Amino acid sequence: MHFDHAGIATDDATELAELYGTLFGLEIAHEEEFDGMRVVFLDCGNGYFELLEPLEEGTIARYLEEQGSGIHHLALATDDVEAALERTREHGVALVDEEPRPGAWGHSVAFLHPRDTGGILLEFVEH
Amino acid sequence: MHFDHAGIATDDATELAELYGTLFGLEIAHEEEFDGMRVVFLDCGNGYFELLEPLEEGTIARYLEEQGSGIHHLALATDDVEAALERTREHGVALVDEEPRPGAWGHSVAFLHPRDTGGILLEFVEH
Repeated sequence: MHFDHAGIATDDATELAELYGTLFGLEIAHEEEFDGMRVVFLDCGNGYFELLEPLEEGTIARYLEEQGSGIHHLALATDDVEAALERTREHGVALVDEEPRPGAWGHSVAFLHPRDTGGILLEFVEH
Repeated sequence: MHFDHAGIATDDATELAELYGTLFGLEIAHEEEFDGMRVVFLDCGNGYFELLEPLEEGTIARYLEEQGSGIHHLALATDDVEAALERTREHGVALVDEEPRPGAWGHSVAFLHPRDTGGILLEFVEH
């Protein structure tokens, strides 16, 4: 597995994308509305910053209300989310998603429960 | 600039490194005691997870007391931290480190203040 992206919760993905473009030269690789969020992927060359702006109530809106903007999760790329989930389940790790589900950008994704991963919200991504 | 690492605050870097090794196949690329912390870099192939375990009082110990284990910062690699800092300063972004300073693994690093980067703690790293 390798690094795929860091998910960042923000009130304004457009503004943050512009700021990171100006400051760090990161360009928009992809953007869409997905699952009640505006999602903007910034290209870091070897992975992405995934900016997540809620457009309605949901987990990211609650995250922002409780903690403010911040680094929401880390995603690891795998060529088989289902097999990765199975291995993880065998090690007794609680899963948020028992099966792969459609993610932004047409990816197949699944989240692991942070209580069994050292407090970190981790995601598997299959492109 | 490209992705360098995600900094993760943890009570036990050894245990977390073993867990991520078992679950995700991430191997230890480097480990050392640095600046009152045990620091373990896990190799993601295209970047690192930097596990930060405090050995004494300091910013990571306070972070753990206040928030528990979590994703502490994101680092972008640059071939010139000083120039990157200068460009960032010119855009009015507050800096935690006005000048590059020695970081773990012999790197030169500088942190930007999250209040001007959308609430995200960002670091420049020069290898």
